[in-house]
Amino acid sequence: MALIVHKYGGTSMGSPERIKNVARRIAKWRAAGHQIVVVPSAMSGETNRLLGIAREISKTPNERELDMIASTGEQVSVGLLAIALLDIGVPARSYTGWQVPIKTDNAYTKARIHSIDDKRVRQDLDAGKVVIITGFQGVDDDGNITTLGRGGSDTSAVAVAAALNAQECLIYTDVDGVYTTDPRVVAEARRLKVVSFEEMLEMASLGSKVLQIRSVEFAGKYKVRTRVLSSLTDPLMSLDEEMKSGTLITFEEDENMEQAVISGIAFNRDEAKITVLGVPDRPGIAYQILGAIADANIEVDMIIQNQGMGGTTDFSFTVHRNDFDKAMATLNGTVKAAIGAREINGATNVCKVSAVGIGMRSHVGIASLMFKTLSEEGINIQMISTSEIKISVILEDKYMELAVRALHSAFGLDKKA
Amino acid sequence: MALIVHKYGGTSMGSPERIKNVARRIAKWRAAGHQIVVVPSAMSGETNRLLGIAREISKTPNERELDMIASTGEQVSVGLLAIALLDIGVPARSYTGWQVPIKTDNAYTKARIHSIDDKRVRQDLDAGKVVIITGFQGVDDDGNITTLGRGGSDTSAVAVAAALNAQECLIYTDVDGVYTTDPRVVAEARRLKVVSFEEMLEMASLGSKVLQIRSVEFAGKYKVRTRVLSSLTDPLMSLDEEMKSGTLITFEEDENMEQAVISGIAFNRDEAKITVLGVPDRPGIAYQILGAIADANIEVDMIIQNQGMGGTTDFSFTVHRNDFDKAMATLNGTVKAAIGAREINGATNVCKVSAVGIGMRSHVGIASLMFKTLSEEGINIQMISTSEIKISVILEDKYMELAVRALHSAFGLDKKA
Repeated sequence: MALIVHKYGGTSMGSPERIKNVARRIAKWRAAGHQIVVVPSAMSGETNRLLGIAREISKTPNERELDMIASTGEQVSVGLLAIALLDIGVPARSYTGWQVPIKTDNAYTKARIHSIDDKRVRQDLDAGKVVIITGFQGVDDDGNITTLGRGGSDTSAVAVAAALNAQECLIYTDVDGVYTTDPRVVAEARRLKVVSFEEMLEMASLGSKVLQIRSVEFAGKYKVRTRVLSSLTDPLMSLDEEMKSGTLITFEEDENMEQAVISGIAFNRDEAKITVLGVPDRPGIAYQILGAIADANIEVDMIIQNQGMGGTTDFSFTVHRNDFDKAMATLNGTVKAAIGAREINGATNVCKVSAVGIGMRSHVGIASLMFKTLSEEGINIQMISTSEIKISVILEDKYMELAVRALHSAFGLDKKA
Repeated sequence: MALIVHKYGGTSMGSPERIKNVARRIAKWRAAGHQIVVVPSAMSGETNRLLGIAREISKTPNERELDMIASTGEQVSVGLLAIALLDIGVPARSYTGWQVPIKTDNAYTKARIHSIDDKRVRQDLDAGKVVIITGFQGVDDDGNITTLGRGGSDTSAVAVAAALNAQECLIYTDVDGVYTTDPRVVAEARRLKVVSFEEMLEMASLGSKVLQIRSVEFAGKYKVRTRVLSSLTDPLMSLDEEMKSGTLITFEEDENMEQAVISGIAFNRDEAKITVLGVPDRPGIAYQILGAIADANIEVDMIIQNQGMGGTTDFSFTVHRNDFDKAMATLNGTVKAAIGAREINGATNVCKVSAVGIGMRSHVGIASLMFKTLSEEGINIQMISTSEIKISVILEDKYMELAVRALHSAFGLDKKA
């Protein structure tokens, strides 16, 4: 007997029939002798519908009140799932974030979990009940409802699994795992059976939207064995078969059976690049540029500065494409004159392509294979940035699919493991 | 400066534009120097939508989980209204039932309010904020969400007004007050400017669906000055004009300016009558009959027993039309034999028509005028029941409109006060 946390996404909870299927799957797990805690998302479309009404009323809706509204989608889901389980004879009980309670800070719309009280949950589990907890939300010290931001239910599920010391956290979603790259771009993309926490973190942050990045951070911090798998399979398939499906995110290197050097090719179309040319090469310049960008509430992704020549240097960074105009305006406003830059230019027709792999640590030549492959395809590299387990390049966006396919093949990801 | 509670119904909260109108009306009241607490209902249709999904999942959904689901409609409303107020520069803060807290018993789907903590509310009011509280719901001693049943937001508003010792509770709804009878049946029906608590209680229980009956009981118990008025008027009309509209429910007899003997003609189409014939006239018979009905969870309205002859008597009562078949089956099941009744018969083609008036207490001849009027129209009276301020008759339902119109005219309710 083990304690397992299940998380179901909005599509899995999207209709009465689908909710019944979720209940059937949970009943199967419980019948096999496991204790089950479930964290369901809001029914698909529901949170957007609610926030849409709020935005019709105000262009700048108050964030405490947005959380009051947005948290109801998950509250409906937990009640509906409890009803579905009770209807097929499975004892079940639902709790909101404040009932558990799941304590957070008071950063409305993007709160962070501080603690989870497991008393009520354990009592119910020991009494044989399935416990259903709202994802996405918690309560601050003053009893205000908070939400964790988009995709927050993944984080809730992993946090609950950590608090309960669960054996595994199963994230049921509408894809059947993590792939070597997006199958819509490369037909030969393969599902990874195992991926390391570090690789998953890079892939999530690079735009593989299987899991919210904070949930991966949480899984890493608390060493929660987390598995991504499909909720669209037959809910009554055997447990053995089910545990062979999906992708396991692991923290033990020896579990990483696929000894590939590179695990996947990630990419992101939402980038824009900005370069500040002819900046005086002296301390404090990077702060003057990026401080102004941060003050304008713009998130920065890659940051690159080259060795300067003749007392000046060039400073480049990337932002989300939607923030490009605002970032350019900010720099041209007062920053340019203040730092004495010669010119500020930028472009939105760029993309980022990355090779990610924990095996990269112990293998040389990965970077050169990547650059050679792109060169052979005639693709110019505009910017390069590397980490221990990742190499990212900025390219003109029209080359994105070509680059991804070429790299996927060059690193042998097309071949069966 | 006074503390006023506003309650807005689901139609008043039915769209972003209507919510903005509610906010404008509240802003006007606050600008006049009043402290305002608002209790809004769920957006119209929302609670039914949610319960509909639950019933698609289970024919007998668990009631604790139904309350978890149904309570979200009001939670969305308070958040939206707070956003609308803040958007026009009015400080406002929303609270759920559990945040106040509004403590109830644990009778899910029909809970009763035990207590309301006014600490947080008073702090916010003293800080100049409009406080918005979810209607329809509370929290039990174990922290479970409860709901008060249909129309429960009226009760919440009156209970909040009582707890805060508010000067008045304004119930904004889609009708502009309480009428002498339903204007759809009698074109000459007039709005009452003032109605006594006792009359309102009788009218609410007799099917005038302006206010939920428990809210009227609450208003009576705690002497809450309550006014029913329209939310469809211009939100910026003058306060003086607004306070002249609607119907005031009062507890002071001298406020009852309209010295009519009868205040209104109420009616109800949902009745069914059942008669148990030839019952032995001995103690315990009424209990044996109604005990079985109560055990079957059927509510009884009128109960009539005549003086018996020859050692037997006839026992009649009315139930909701939807419960008729169940009630007949219950009686024919075991009760009939157990009590030795000769026959059980009943009919669903009946209605109840009542004359209600606090002036009846001190006037004779009301009953005879009522019976004479019905007789002149050739309408046979099947059952009669009276209270201190009400006479009710059961008639064949096809005569209902005719009876209501004739009585409305006979008691002089057509004339301007």
